[in-house]
Amino acid sequence: MPFEVTILGNNSAIPAHGRHPTSQVVQIHEHFFLVDCGEGTQMQLAKYKIRKNKFDHIFISHLHGDHYFGLIGLITSYHLMHRERPLHVHGPKGLLDIINLQLAVSNTTLYYELIFHEVKSELVNVLLETDEYSISSFPVKHRIPTHGFLFKEKIGLRKINPDKISELNFPFQIIAELKKGNDCEWEGKLLKSNEWTLPPVAPHSYAFCADTVYHEELKQYIAGCDVIYHEATFMEESSERAIITFHSTARQAAAMGKAIGVKKLLIGHFSAKYDNLLPLLAEAKEIFSETELAIEGQVFSI
Amino acid sequence: MPFEVTILGNNSAIPAHGRHPTSQVVQIHEHFFLVDCGEGTQMQLAKYKIRKNKFDHIFISHLHGDHYFGLIGLITSYHLMHRERPLHVHGPKGLLDIINLQLAVSNTTLYYELIFHEVKSELVNVLLETDEYSISSFPVKHRIPTHGFLFKEKIGLRKINPDKISELNFPFQIIAELKKGNDCEWEGKLLKSNEWTLPPVAPHSYAFCADTVYHEELKQYIAGCDVIYHEATFMEESSERAIITFHSTARQAAAMGKAIGVKKLLIGHFSAKYDNLLPLLAEAKEIFSETELAIEGQVFSI
Repeated sequence: MPFEVTILGNNSAIPAHGRHPTSQVVQIHEHFFLVDCGEGTQMQLAKYKIRKNKFDHIFISHLHGDHYFGLIGLITSYHLMHRERPLHVHGPKGLLDIINLQLAVSNTTLYYELIFHEVKSELVNVLLETDEYSISSFPVKHRIPTHGFLFKEKIGLRKINPDKISELNFPFQIIAELKKGNDCEWEGKLLKSNEWTLPPVAPHSYAFCADTVYHEELKQYIAGCDVIYHEATFMEESSERAIITFHSTARQAAAMGKAIGVKKLLIGHFSAKYDNLLPLLAEAKEIFSETELAIEGQVFSI
Repeated sequence: MPFEVTILGNNSAIPAHGRHPTSQVVQIHEHFFLVDCGEGTQMQLAKYKIRKNKFDHIFISHLHGDHYFGLIGLITSYHLMHRERPLHVHGPKGLLDIINLQLAVSNTTLYYELIFHEVKSELVNVLLETDEYSISSFPVKHRIPTHGFLFKEKIGLRKINPDKISELNFPFQIIAELKKGNDCEWEGKLLKSNEWTLPPVAPHSYAFCADTVYHEELKQYIAGCDVIYHEATFMEESSERAIITFHSTARQAAAMGKAIGVKKLLIGHFSAKYDNLLPLLAEAKEIFSETELAIEGQVFSI
């Protein structure tokens, strides 16, 4: 079952060098989520052939424009497309007022229901939970209230042991119980789950750490993650500027990835001052080799 | 002296087929103006290598999102670039509230002065006037208050007669008077302006007719224009839909161009339902042969 992130935008603040403001698509199994929605996100979705109608939940990390100026366009497009399914938007206080004001001036009453969930940035919040996954937010440290998002698969069902598949002539309900890890009786015989099935695939997790200064406390929220995205607006030569603007350097992002022991670190939110991104990657890799640039259009498996 | 319009976006409502929402750059001599600012306008400026800092005046026709959702991003980019010159935004009531709310949630106080000029859509308003040109707005007929913009050159100075250039040994002030059309005395001799100079180049004009249903009254505002842009959201087969949505068909745009007797008609604001635009062009050309598609990136001389 796929668990992937697709990068739609990787630049900070001012679009530059053909790079776009922040947006990512997270796919967990058959479910698609949009994380941040900078200006031009709907065009980026079209460019990378992701149907915009796949999303029922959009998550906004904070109210700097490069993370949400594309949202109203997407909301309006859904309306013009006569969307009927409700749309859930999870974001900071204030976002709904901005949406409503822009709908009001154009006399627009949406065809669909827009359900806004205010995210309290200073807390850990479970935003969405199913049998398959959970999505929660966690605080980061930026100039204005900002939160990251944690996407976690849940432990799935045990897998049928392929060596036993030819002998598997029980009813469906029995097999379902065995896959859940429960032993069963059938025709007077005890069927042990751990003989007929193998352990489930280990669940994975992905953390989108939003815009943040390097912040030790983050570790408690993203510990155990397989993949994290951590911003790397600047290189270490601009570390003072990073502190003033509450952003991080490539080296700091790498230090976080190393401390957590992730399998893969994605860095992004690059300053417009960098045309060539390879020096940022090199700086990060000096600290943590499993770093990759969050290049637009690339799909990373979690 | 150049008088040109560059198309940045030509699609209606939903971005589609690689086409962007409405935006145009009008250049009059050395002055650049932005007309409407749909989502992604700042990226389109970069794509067509027009420096975003050239603009001191931005004109917004109405508050449907496909005409202004890119404005806040541009305003924010100017801030991040530490722009110092004031920026004038001319648009409908309500636009300033939207801008201010989005600046407030990000705790942003702009580095530069943003001067908002409320345009009363139901009136003809002179928005900007210099010795070289005037820019005014005029009412069109759409679902919400909407206005077009008229860009007019003024009559320039007379040109020195090239046959006389070798005899032109007068002081600068005398030449300036002759170019203004004034006869002068110099060293006891009468210098007649119309002997030493030729008539000025005829002034040109361009009308951007915004989003509008076909509207006879428009003619009075745009009579005598050299070039007009008139929307052609639909083809004639969707003429009922055009009326319901207060838009025009390609045939109607052509009828307007023909009635005015323009040298060139540009059609745009194409519905997302049209992938191929050539049938719209063909429909218009049946009525008025001097029609061109407002293709993104193309520059039209006025």
